[in-house]
Amino acid sequence: MEYAVRGAIVTRAGELEAQLKKDPASLPFDKIVMCNIGNPQSVGQKPITFYRQVLALTDYPQLMDAPEAGKLFPSDVISTAKHILGNMKGGTGAYSESKGVAALRQMVADGIEARDGGHKCDIEDLWLTDGASVACHHIMKTLIRDGNDAVMVPIPQYPLYSASLALYGGTLVPYYLDEDKEWGLDVADLKVQLDKARAAGKEVRALCVINPGNPTGNALNVDNQKEIVQFCKDEGVLLIADEVYQENVYAEGRSFTSFKKVVRDMGLDIPLVSMQSTSKGFYGECGRRGGYMEVCGLDPDVKAELYKLASVGLCPNLSGQVLMGLVMSPPKPGDPSYELYAAERDAILSSLKRRALKLVSGLNALEGVTCNEAQGAMYAFPKVSLPEKFVAEATASGKMAPDALYCMKLLEATGIVVVPGSGFGQVEGTWHFRTTFLPSEEDIGGVVEKLAKFHAEFMDTYR
Amino acid sequence: MEYAVRGAIVTRAGELEAQLKKDPASLPFDKIVMCNIGNPQSVGQKPITFYRQVLALTDYPQLMDAPEAGKLFPSDVISTAKHILGNMKGGTGAYSESKGVAALRQMVADGIEARDGGHKCDIEDLWLTDGASVACHHIMKTLIRDGNDAVMVPIPQYPLYSASLALYGGTLVPYYLDEDKEWGLDVADLKVQLDKARAAGKEVRALCVINPGNPTGNALNVDNQKEIVQFCKDEGVLLIADEVYQENVYAEGRSFTSFKKVVRDMGLDIPLVSMQSTSKGFYGECGRRGGYMEVCGLDPDVKAELYKLASVGLCPNLSGQVLMGLVMSPPKPGDPSYELYAAERDAILSSLKRRALKLVSGLNALEGVTCNEAQGAMYAFPKVSLPEKFVAEATASGKMAPDALYCMKLLEATGIVVVPGSGFGQVEGTWHFRTTFLPSEEDIGGVVEKLAKFHAEFMDTYR
Repeated sequence: MEYAVRGAIVTRAGELEAQLKKDPASLPFDKIVMCNIGNPQSVGQKPITFYRQVLALTDYPQLMDAPEAGKLFPSDVISTAKHILGNMKGGTGAYSESKGVAALRQMVADGIEARDGGHKCDIEDLWLTDGASVACHHIMKTLIRDGNDAVMVPIPQYPLYSASLALYGGTLVPYYLDEDKEWGLDVADLKVQLDKARAAGKEVRALCVINPGNPTGNALNVDNQKEIVQFCKDEGVLLIADEVYQENVYAEGRSFTSFKKVVRDMGLDIPLVSMQSTSKGFYGECGRRGGYMEVCGLDPDVKAELYKLASVGLCPNLSGQVLMGLVMSPPKPGDPSYELYAAERDAILSSLKRRALKLVSGLNALEGVTCNEAQGAMYAFPKVSLPEKFVAEATASGKMAPDALYCMKLLEATGIVVVPGSGFGQVEGTWHFRTTFLPSEEDIGGVVEKLAKFHAEFMDTYR
Repeated sequence: MEYAVRGAIVTRAGELEAQLKKDPASLPFDKIVMCNIGNPQSVGQKPITFYRQVLALTDYPQLMDAPEAGKLFPSDVISTAKHILGNMKGGTGAYSESKGVAALRQMVADGIEARDGGHKCDIEDLWLTDGASVACHHIMKTLIRDGNDAVMVPIPQYPLYSASLALYGGTLVPYYLDEDKEWGLDVADLKVQLDKARAAGKEVRALCVINPGNPTGNALNVDNQKEIVQFCKDEGVLLIADEVYQENVYAEGRSFTSFKKVVRDMGLDIPLVSMQSTSKGFYGECGRRGGYMEVCGLDPDVKAELYKLASVGLCPNLSGQVLMGLVMSPPKPGDPSYELYAAERDAILSSLKRRALKLVSGLNALEGVTCNEAQGAMYAFPKVSLPEKFVAEATASGKMAPDALYCMKLLEATGIVVVPGSGFGQVEGTWHFRTTFLPSEEDIGGVVEKLAKFHAEFMDTYR
């Protein structure tokens, strides 16, 4: 099991950061810039005020009784906190039901229905979790009996999928996203890979789709989603939709449509798991570890197993539960908090869009580097044509994959931390890295500049 | 995998609660009393003010800038929140290091050193976790390669151990706590069970000890702990110390001593994992899902595996991390918050002690019921001599173990929810149940009374 987003390069970054503190002049840069992980608040993004105000009141409800409360908190913050606390025994200090507080699941369900044009969401299908990672673990654990059970995973993929499959002893069946077609998903290739796995005796139980894509940053269009749904129906495989970037779509003419909506619009009821998180979107509340999965069309026995798994952990953290409810049921136009909420949201999203454009155009200006548009998510995943001489040198040393060595050199020269493509999987003989576009608007220009300078020198050395 | 504390009886309790809401007159009781789980705030215990004040400020730091802040929060609350926020990039909204924020681990380490008479605690040995359950899962996953790997677990045990062993495919080697000796741990029996397992070809990798005990409520004395440590050293097994009830010791003349202190006082450095949680103690902050494990004397390769496992989850929730730091480094005498903190702490602990006494003496007054003193933790685990006629009837019906059926009847008659001994394991042919003594002082008398009335009628029916 490997986990590239927290691998050797990140460990080295930690060492360099400690060295910078002790002896700032000893390195050719003055700070470490973490572009390895979608962690917006660690690089300066501010939390959405409404969420934090409600969290403060649910943590310390006496604040509501203080005479100053009305001055410190808008009335909808207070009423939301009261609604939440009034519907949970023991407040945020008590274990909730294993699936999460019913009233918070209702807030999530309301948000899902609003998002999906009114298609029903039953709170019995909802499981609040400590982030989407936990949801993925529960699903994998439930699906995998032994190495014969397989799950189809995109390449490149977010390593949560390969790691959880390795952990529970299942088989990963790769399918390849097409870099030349904006990292699109080719259903014909799905079928080829599925048949190959079946011919090898594997029982393919599920197909994972990450939309918007991680690390690729692509956003699927509805026609493509329909084909995927039809494929899952025809082949009898569970569709696992990682939709944690559902509020991160930047490309003109693109928007997010949930797989649940696609399925329902097609008049179907196929087995489907959709995952969402408080960590992504414009909120980027990674530290709260809030998430949910909506589980539709699954056998009651499978749901009973999921329930047991959730029970062993007793319940997800209540702070994350509260936040997940708020994220899916935010202030509405006319609410006292709405204007500030909408202004904060729009400022973050439009800034992310500008940063994505700046980064991708900077990458495309580098020699031997091509990068698809970052249509969504928080990442660009450029292809780097590494010089043969460098690949040979890296391969001969046998210590690191060539792309990992490239990323290590980038770190040592610039302080910029990115993740090598080999951590996500890539077509053999191609090399990539994943970088977030999360550094602030003041910083992102510097990142592009330093990258360009490093890359030019690197090419001069190895061309 | 089964999880009794959230099993069939709890599910039935949920149904009855819904029925009570709809039609209060349809049942012979007016409320459900949850004695199935150590969840103090769900049954009315109030949170410690200091903790919640710091949490509110770390969630919503702008509060500190409000002109009213000085009136609303004592100065040490503000300085503690500032210290914490000053030492984490991105506050509670960012992923931290996989092991948790270094400054919070330092607060935990300081607390461990103070508790253990100055024995050193290195923050590199500390892993903050989403509650002790996650720590247990990480350890089990790291220890268990296949069904040949075994872990010694007390009987009766908290089902987290059997469930996690089942999940990762390991073997549970039981050892029996001696009910006639205050649920003491007999090291001679440990050796018998270990040899038996080894003779059967198992590799026994660890010994779990729960101290204070769950479900037994016993508190080990230091001489007994020394024997256990010596056993682990002699046999080369890892000692896993579940010490989540370390601040719940009520019996006169008993106090908690950590296994780490025992090991260090013996001049040893054996492999040891100690787990702690924000959910227990006098704080009972179950909803925050905070915990830590201190991992001493383990091979660096094993620690590297643990690090990878933690990395796949990215990090424990920040709210739980903050609370774990506060729990281990609470206000000190002289601090502005100290008096209130100490008063709240002492009121809860002395009330728990009174409730434990009342419950255990009530249980011992029942026909055919004996119950050891609840020296610690939050539970009593009485032995019930079920009448032969009842055992035969239950066995014949084949639906539930006799003790489970007893607990179900108790629920249907009184609304009191307890957990059958079969969910924790017990000597064959004996029957128990676990009940918390967490209902409030006003309620606990009613619980004892209703239990007595039910039990008398039950005995009249089946005697």
